[in-house]
Parts: sequence; C-alpha cells; structure tokens
Amino acid sequence: MTGKIKRFLIGRPMKSNELEGEKLGKLKALAILSSDALSSVAYGTEQILIVLILAGAAALWYSLPIALAVLALLAILIVSYRQTIFAYPTGGGAYIVAKDNIGKFSSLIAGGSLLVDYILTVAVSSSAGTDAITSAFPVLHDDRVLIALAMIVFLTLMNLRGVTESASVLAIPIYAFVVSIFLLIIIGTINYFTGGAPAAAPQMEATISNVSLFLLLKAFSSGCSALTGVEAVSNAIPNFRDPAPKNAAATLVMMGLILGAMFTGITLLAYWYGIRPDEKATVISQIAEATFGRGWMYFMIQGVTAIILFLAANTAYSAFPLLAFMLAKDKYLPHMFMVRGDRLGFSNGIIFLSVMSAILVVVFEGNTDSLIPLYAVGVFIPFTLSQLGMMIRWIKHKPKGWQGKLVVNTIGMLTTLSITLIFVFTKFAQVWVVFIFLPIVVYLFAKIHRHYENTADQLRIDLAVDKPCVKGNTVIIPVSGITQVVRNTVSYAKTLSDSVVAVYIGFDDESIRKMEEKWEEWDPGIRLIVLKSRYRSIMRPLRKFIDTVEWKKGEQDNITVLIPQFITKHWWEAVLHNQTSLMMRAYLLNYKDVIVTTVPFHLHK
Amino acid sequence: MTGKIKRFLIGRPMKSNELEGEKLGKLKALAILSSDALSSVAYGTEQILIVLILAGAAALWYSLPIALAVLALLAILIVSYRQTIFAYPTGGGAYIVAKDNIGKFSSLIAGGSLLVDYILTVAVSSSAGTDAITSAFPVLHDDRVLIALAMIVFLTLMNLRGVTESASVLAIPIYAFVVSIFLLIIIGTINYFTGGAPAAAPQMEATISNVSLFLLLKAFSSGCSALTGVEAVSNAIPNFRDPAPKNAAATLVMMGLILGAMFTGITLLAYWYGIRPDEKATVISQIAEATFGRGWMYFMIQGVTAIILFLAANTAYSAFPLLAFMLAKDKYLPHMFMVRGDRLGFSNGIIFLSVMSAILVVVFEGNTDSLIPLYAVGVFIPFTLSQLGMMIRWIKHKPKGWQGKLVVNTIGMLTTLSITLIFVFTKFAQVWVVFIFLPIVVYLFAKIHRHYENTADQLRIDLAVDKPCVKGNTVIIPVSGITQVVRNTVSYAKTLSDSVVAVYIGFDDESIRKMEEKWEEWDPGIRLIVLKSRYRSIMRPLRKFIDTVEWKKGEQDNITVLIPQFITKHWWEAVLHNQTSLMMRAYLLNYKDVIVTTVPFHLHK
Repeated sequence: MTGKIKRFLIGRPMKSNELEGEKLGKLKALAILSSDALSSVAYGTEQILIVLILAGAAALWYSLPIALAVLALLAILIVSYRQTIFAYPTGGGAYIVAKDNIGKFSSLIAGGSLLVDYILTVAVSSSAGTDAITSAFPVLHDDRVLIALAMIVFLTLMNLRGVTESASVLAIPIYAFVVSIFLLIIIGTINYFTGGAPAAAPQMEATISNVSLFLLLKAFSSGCSALTGVEAVSNAIPNFRDPAPKNAAATLVMMGLILGAMFTGITLLAYWYGIRPDEKATVISQIAEATFGRGWMYFMIQGVTAIILFLAANTAYSAFPLLAFMLAKDKYLPHMFMVRGDRLGFSNGIIFLSVMSAILVVVFEGNTDSLIPLYAVGVFIPFTLSQLGMMIRWIKHKPKGWQGKLVVNTIGMLTTLSITLIFVFTKFAQVWVVFIFLPIVVYLFAKIHRHYENTADQLRIDLAVDKPCVKGNTVIIPVSGITQVVRNTVSYAKTLSDSVVAVYIGFDDESIRKMEEKWEEWDPGIRLIVLKSRYRSIMRPLRKFIDTVEWKKGEQDNITVLIPQFITKHWWEAVLHNQTSLMMRAYLLNYKDVIVTTVPFHLHK
Repeated sequence: MTGKIKRFLIGRPMKSNELEGEKLGKLKALAILSSDALSSVAYGTEQILIVLILAGAAALWYSLPIALAVLALLAILIVSYRQTIFAYPTGGGAYIVAKDNIGKFSSLIAGGSLLVDYILTVAVSSSAGTDAITSAFPVLHDDRVLIALAMIVFLTLMNLRGVTESASVLAIPIYAFVVSIFLLIIIGTINYFTGGAPAAAPQMEATISNVSLFLLLKAFSSGCSALTGVEAVSNAIPNFRDPAPKNAAATLVMMGLILGAMFTGITLLAYWYGIRPDEKATVISQIAEATFGRGWMYFMIQGVTAIILFLAANTAYSAFPLLAFMLAKDKYLPHMFMVRGDRLGFSNGIIFLSVMSAILVVVFEGNTDSLIPLYAVGVFIPFTLSQLGMMIRWIKHKPKGWQGKLVVNTIGMLTTLSITLIFVFTKFAQVWVVFIFLPIVVYLFAKIHRHYENTADQLRIDLAVDKPCVKGNTVIIPVSGITQVVRNTVSYAKTLSDSVVAVYIGFDDESIRKMEEKWEEWDPGIRLIVLKSRYRSIMRPLRKFIDTVEWKKGEQDNITVLIPQFITKHWWEAVLHNQTSLMMRAYLLNYKDVIVTTVPFHLHK
C-alpha cells in the first residue's frame, strides 16, 4: 500500500548504472545555475528600501549610491570566484576550498554555514515566491504559510523523483524571467522619461538629518542579499561541457552581468516611481503595476517571479544533499546522507532539507524580511572563508602570476569579511542566532566524527590473526505458559544445545504452582525454573537470573536467550498483545552480553 | 533519567500485595461517589435556560415545570437503581446487568457507550470547572483550553500515583460544596423575599406564542444532564462496609435527596433573579454575585464548584479503567488494559482516558455547551439498557414480589428510553455523532474478540500429544564487510551448526571482487556467497536467497538468520548508523518462516 503510493509519487526504482548526468553547455548551465542568484533581484532592492524608509521617504534616494556599492561588490565577487573556478576544475565549494587550504575547523564552519544557508534558501525563496503570488492576489495573503509549505512539498516530491533530466525545461522560465524583467525596465524607463507614468522621485541629494552612517551600512548590508547565490557556478564545474573551467567562468561572468543590469534597473525604477516598501505588495509588483497597470504583463511578471524563486529554492535541493554527502563521507554527518534512494537521489538529504525549511517557514510565519538577514549572513561567512582559502593557496603554491591573484582574493576576502562584520554590527538583533547555532553545528560535526573514528577502531580486524573462536552455548527460554509458541521454541532450543533451561516468572504462588504442575505433565525434556516477582516486573527477575547464569557459565559458554513470539497475521493486530518480547529484546541487547533470538510462530487467521 | 522523572511524578513502584482498599462508611462513600452527580447542578439549570432563552426572556419561567419533570425522573432513577443494588451486591454496572440478562450485543452497546461517556465526563467536567474559574476571573477566558488541559494532566498524574488512600481528603471539598450551595440557596431566598436583591423574575404563566412542544422537550432533555452520575453508587457496592447493599442503597437515596434539593434551589433562584445564560459567566456565578456581590463568599462558591467538577472528572478515572479491565478480561479490549502499573492502577486505561478527553477538549475548544448533549445521550443509553436488563431478570427469576419490581423497572426503562428518543429527536444535529461512533466501537469490540478467540485456538496445546520435535539447523549470516562484529557472529554460528553460510550483497562488481578476496584471505571456515543488487536493495536479493535455501533445506532444517549488530555505547549514537539490521529483522520475522538471531557486539567507547 505505502509502496504503491510511493511509486505513484516518486516513480519506479532506478538501477545504479542509470546514474549519468548529461553535460551542460553555457546557455543551459546559465539557466540551471543562475536561478538562485538572479531571483535575488526579487527582494534585493526591497531590502534596501525597507531600511531607508525608517529615516523617512526623503531618504529613499540613498538607494542609488548603495546600489552602486552593491554592484562594486558583485564585480569583486565575480572576479575572485573566476579564480576559484580555474583553481578547482573539479568543483570548489567553500567547504572544499577551506578544507584544502585552511584546515579542518574552518572547513566545518564553512560547511555548517552552507548547510544552514541552503535550508534558509528554501525558506526564503518559497516565502518570497509566495509574496509574489499574494501581491498579485491579495486575497491569499492570510494563507501565505500554507502556500509556501505547498511549494516545499512539491519541490520535495520533484527532487525525490530526480530532476536532472529536465534541465532543458527549467531553462524556459528563467529566460522568461530575464526577458520580462528587462522589458519591465525598458518600458518603465521610457514611460518615466516620456512622462507617461506618475513620477514621484524624492529630491536627490537632499540632506536628511537623521540618516546615520549606521543606517546606511545597514541598508547596504541588506542590499547585499541581492548577491546570494553567485557561488552556485563554482560548485558545479564538473557538469560543464569541455573545456569545463572556461565555460564555467564565462557563465559566471554572464550571470554577473545580467544580475547587475537587472538590479540596477529595478533600483532606478523604484527610485523614479517613488516606490515605498509595503507589506502586502512587493517592490517588483508595485513597479510592474505602475508601468503596465494590472494587465496581463503585470500578472506575467508576478508569475515568472514566483516561478524563478521556486527554482531558486530548487537549487538548494541539488546543493544541500551533495554537501551533506561530502560531509558524511568525511564522517562529519550520519552515514544516512550517503545512501542513494530508489531514484538515485540522496533522499535523506532531500527530506531533511524539506523538514528543516518547512519548520523555518512555520516559525517565521513565511515572513521573508525576517529570514533574509539570517540567509545573507550565512552566505557571507563561507564567502569569506573561501576567499581566505584561496589566498593561502596562492601563498603556498605560488603558481605563475600568483601575486595578482592574491591581490584579487585579498580584496575579495576583506570585502566579504567587512560585510559579515557590518551584518553583525547593524543587525545583531536579527542574526545573533546564527552565532549560537553555528558553534553547535560544528560541535556536532566533531562529536559525530569522533564517534565514527572510535567505532572504526573497535571494529577493525586483522585478517591474519583475528579468526573465529568457538565456545559452548547455554540457552534460556522465558515462558509465560505452555502454548504452541513455547513448543515451537523448545523444539528449536533442543537443536542448539544440550544446556537449555526454561524460566517462568509468576506474580503469585498460585500461578507458579499451576505452571510447575503443567510443565511436569508436559515433560518436554527441559528443566523449568520458576521465579516470583512481587512488583509485577518481568525484566528484573529475568535480569538477575541471567546474571547468575553469566557468572556460572559465561567463561566457557555463549548465553542465548530464545524469545518465543507469535506473529499476528495483520500487523495492526499486534497492538492487541503485550509487547513484552520487544521490550525484553531491546533491554537484553543493550545492557547484557547475551545473544537474543526471536523464534516466530505465525498465526494463520 | 526517565525512570527518575517517573519516580518523582508518580512515586515508587508498589508490591502486588499492597493492593487492598479500605471499606467505606456511608458518609465517606457519599463524598467519594457523589461528586459526579452533585456537580451536575453546576450546569443542569443553565442547560435548561440556554434552550428557553431562544424563545425570549419571558419564556424562562418554563424552567420551573421542566425542573419538576427532571425531579420526577430523578426519583424514578433512584428507586430503580436501589433495586439493582440489591440484585447485584457485587456491583452492577450497566455492562454487567446487560451481559447477564439481555445478551452480548446489548452489553457491548452499554459498555461502549459507558466508555465513551467516561471520556466525556472528564472533558465536560474539566471544561465546566474551567468555566467556574473563568467566570470568577474573566481575564482567563481566552486560556480556557489550556486550563482544562492542565486539569486533565494533574488528574492523570494523581491517578497514576493511585488516590484510593486519600478518600478522607476528598470528602472535605464535597461537603464544602454542598454546604456552600445550600447557604447560597438559603441566603438567596431570604434576600429575594426581603427585597434585598434585585428581583427580576419574568411573569409566570405568561403564554409565549413561540414556545413549541419541541422547544420544551429540548429544554427538558437538556435539564436531564443534571442527572448524569447517579449510577456511580451501583458500580461501587463492594467497597461499602457491611451490610454493603443496604449501606449503598441508603447512600444512593441521600445523594438523590441532596441533588434534588440543590437543583430545585438553584433553578428557583435563577428564576427569581431573572438570570439569563451568558457565555462568560455561569448561572451559578451570576446567582452568587447577585446574592453576595463579588465578596469572599462569591469566590468561595466558584472555588468549590471548580473543585467538585474536578472531582467529578476524577470519578471517571476510577470507573473507566475498571470497565476497560472488565471488557479486556472478556476479550473485547486489548490485554494492555488488564496490566497494573507500578502503583497498581490500570495505567493504560488512565492514560488512554486522558488522551481521549484531552483531544475532545481541544476539538470542542473547551466549550461545555457542545459537549453536554453528547455526554447526556451517552448516559441515557446504558441507563435504558440497565433497566431493560433488570426487567428481564425479574421475569426470568421471579423472586418474591417480582411484579412490583418489574413495574418499577419498566417505568424506569420507558422513561429513560423516552429521554433518549427525545434527545435524538430534539438535538439530532448535536448528538448524531454518537450514533456513528457507537456502532464502530461495538464493531471493534467484536473484531478484537474474534482475534483473541482465533489466537487462543491456534496457541492451544495438548499436553499429552504435542511434544517438542527436533530438526536440523541451517544458519545464514548476512555480512557487509569483515569486522570484529562479523567475527563475533561467525564464531557464534559455528557453535550452532555445521551448515553455516555467509551472504554478501554488493552493489557493483568491484566491491564484490574485493570482498571475495578478503574473505579468502581471512578464511574463517565458512563459505561466502555473493549476490549483486542493481537496485541498491539489500532485502530483495536476501529474500530470494532465503527462498532458495528454504526450498532446498526447509523440510529437514530450521533456518536461522544471524544478524551481526554492533551496539553503540549511548542509545542516541544509533542514529549515526544505518538501521538495516532492524529493518531486516522486522521483515524476516513478519514475512518469512525463519528464526532471527541478533548477535550483539558492544562498543565500549
């Protein structure tokens, strides 16, 4: 039954050798890898305006110089990530770069913050996608959490099915998004200059007394959220067509140009039209409405924005399970993240990502604005570590022209570090939780690692020396009466050993006497030992009895406890029977050095 | 850890022979057994008024004749239950009377509706107790569900601890309640006649055009909720001091008189003071406020009302687990309801009752008025069946003076049957769910019974004929590598049989080749069989292999699967390892006729 539902939702199991990705050309790669970065324009400008409006509408003109600074930062990131691409042609995420060049500890910080960040990507993108939908249909505003959760469920199923083959399909909405936004920018600009649209730009260069440096830095750091996602290309180099690094670098530059152009355009339009942030309508929605009215172009733009945000969430679904796999392979995360599911995806990583991001969406009530600061700070920590790693690499290896490269990465590192610090400084109230959470994650990584190392030590075998060694066997059968189940178990016990004993635990003298009489009458050729339990506990007397046997026979014998168990025909019938045998098994296995055997007796009706 | 918390909350385990109740005198019995019945005055009058107010304030005078009818019904119930007490001196709940005299089917209906009813008792009483509190402190009105749930949690803990010893303590609040209500009635009456209180009684005998017979019947059936709980005495006869039936009968009559007097008094006061039902203040609260103002007497009355409702819920905690025990003993409910916990109470019944009533409180948002109709109809079904059973008994056994007794029970049966029908007729929209639910419960009873009968048939053994019979033994060890765990298991396997085989399931040729080489090098004296799984499933190839072995050896050998398992030092470390062995065990036990042995290897760090 559950098998059939699973088959319907995620498809038939796939053979291991069906695992083969097609290689990506530049344009297709751009489509698949850029959705996270490009989708950031859906909220980047808005984030700046939300901060500036605190100082009054007249302060909104500061969005222009701030946008310039963001663009400069984008350029720095693109240039330095180009260098990473050429240095790590097999894929250089922050985790690998930090592990390779800085050390274990930094790599764990990078890995941990990236994992958290992918979770936030899903939460932010599904919330922001929901915003795009509810801006168009305000009546849905109260169902935001539900819509975002539905998105996450859909993404989960899609990814459990495996979506690698559908690359070409994904390209369409991305290009539709790019074209729509450029159309919006062009027509919006024309309208503005021909006076066809209401012009309400605040006076530029008005000096606003209450605009502090703090506020400007805060607005700048908010704007940096538009840069999240630019690292995606450097992780995916092996998927590119040859020459992979060159194609990847070209794709990265293209992406940077498109992102910069869109961000500039949206910010200018928002300024010209005097857009103010509104909880119920996104900035993009307001610009689109001012430009086109609520016509089909408006709904088209909201639609593709929602879809691209949806796809941005989807990129986390490829990145998270892969990073979790790498961490699990290095023994920092549970093995289960290494298991491929029926459809060859890392199902456990996919499911974990979905559950965590769904929790975030529920806790933050789908509120994009409270999620984005966490998201952005989570991105800039690995950015910084990755740059630092590259710096160390250049100094260590000193390849041709390393000085220039070092300068680039040093500038990159200093910039991203500054932004991280600005985040902490200006938005501490919103981002402090990251600095509690990250050390916990790293601690867990270390703890898990130590456990795996310890386990491996204890399990390791010397093939030449450690041979099997044979001991004797003493068998104990706990019985609660004389039934076919017990007969079945006693029969089996007699095949194992000549040293078999049955144990009966009675709660009163009467039942004990009866049992002894019946056993004598049955005479199965095995001794019965009776114990009395005044506290109605079965485990306590049994444990004491096993202790005694261990003490007497433990040296020369294995001690086996045979548990007679009847198996009901239908699983739900099991609730009708006491689960003593299960508890007994769990207890004995965990706390005593005995072997536990379940001898089943199948009921047929 | 959990052990310590449990110990702190519910106390140390008790020995079986500590199970001994003290016998009750009349006054103490009255205190313990009457809380359910007496507490009904906290909502009985209100229920009548809620219906009448629908026809306008002038219709409220009809509460007086309706109260008279309820009193008559009370008299009938008391007289007929006296007869049951003498006929069933060992306790005659509706389940037993119906089982004894009518038949299995009726007894299951009686038992099912009583179980449901006890759940509703807890839900109604904790909600009504909360109403008493929030009437006094309106600021708590929004936290009603939480308060009611806290009450249920407290009751659960108290009952898991075992409260039988505290009978004398329970008597105090009950008598405090009775005294307070009588004081309220007396002083309220004096105030009314001396004109000290605002008199706002509606004109009596005003003919209200829109009062239909339907409305009056509905109001009457609502008022019958004041009678819930009168059956408690007849269930508890064995707890009385000798002569038990006589003392029980006297207690029943006393309880009836007190209940009748309180109900009459409250209804009269409500009429005199022109009280109208109010969602935020109970009728008792309004009367007390009108009589005493918001002084200490007012808060005293609200306090004892809350406490007695709390105790009423507590009676369900003695009745439900006992009835569940009886049904389980007759094989209509799972055995687990027969197990006594550490403190000798039927813990499973207590916990089940709490969970179900908590669900009801949450679903109905602690709304007393929607719960009471369900509650009342659930009470009158077993009332009717119990009376019918007594009628049949008199006709069958024909003891001295049986004709008179038959008449009494026939009148009782017809009255309670009529009230049940009036409920269905006037409140179908509120009570229909009972008539869906009850057949389901009875169906489940029957289904559970059949399962137990079938199981017993299959487990039964003929001591003279069915002796153990010995077969051979073939052992299969699934291995995933060569480790100390495997060595340990192979060592054990060699003690069991000479026919042992290890099975390795590889996902690719490379890993299979390596495993074969290592096995050869290790040379443990056991053959290794390798299987390839292209779908990364371990279960499928293993199952096929076992099928083959079964087909070859099943006739003369038991087939034992040894599962090598390492046990982590801390239980939570288990999440770090694949739980394949658990799944394997569950699958093999349920679907194959093999014996499953877990050979543990304990990790020490």
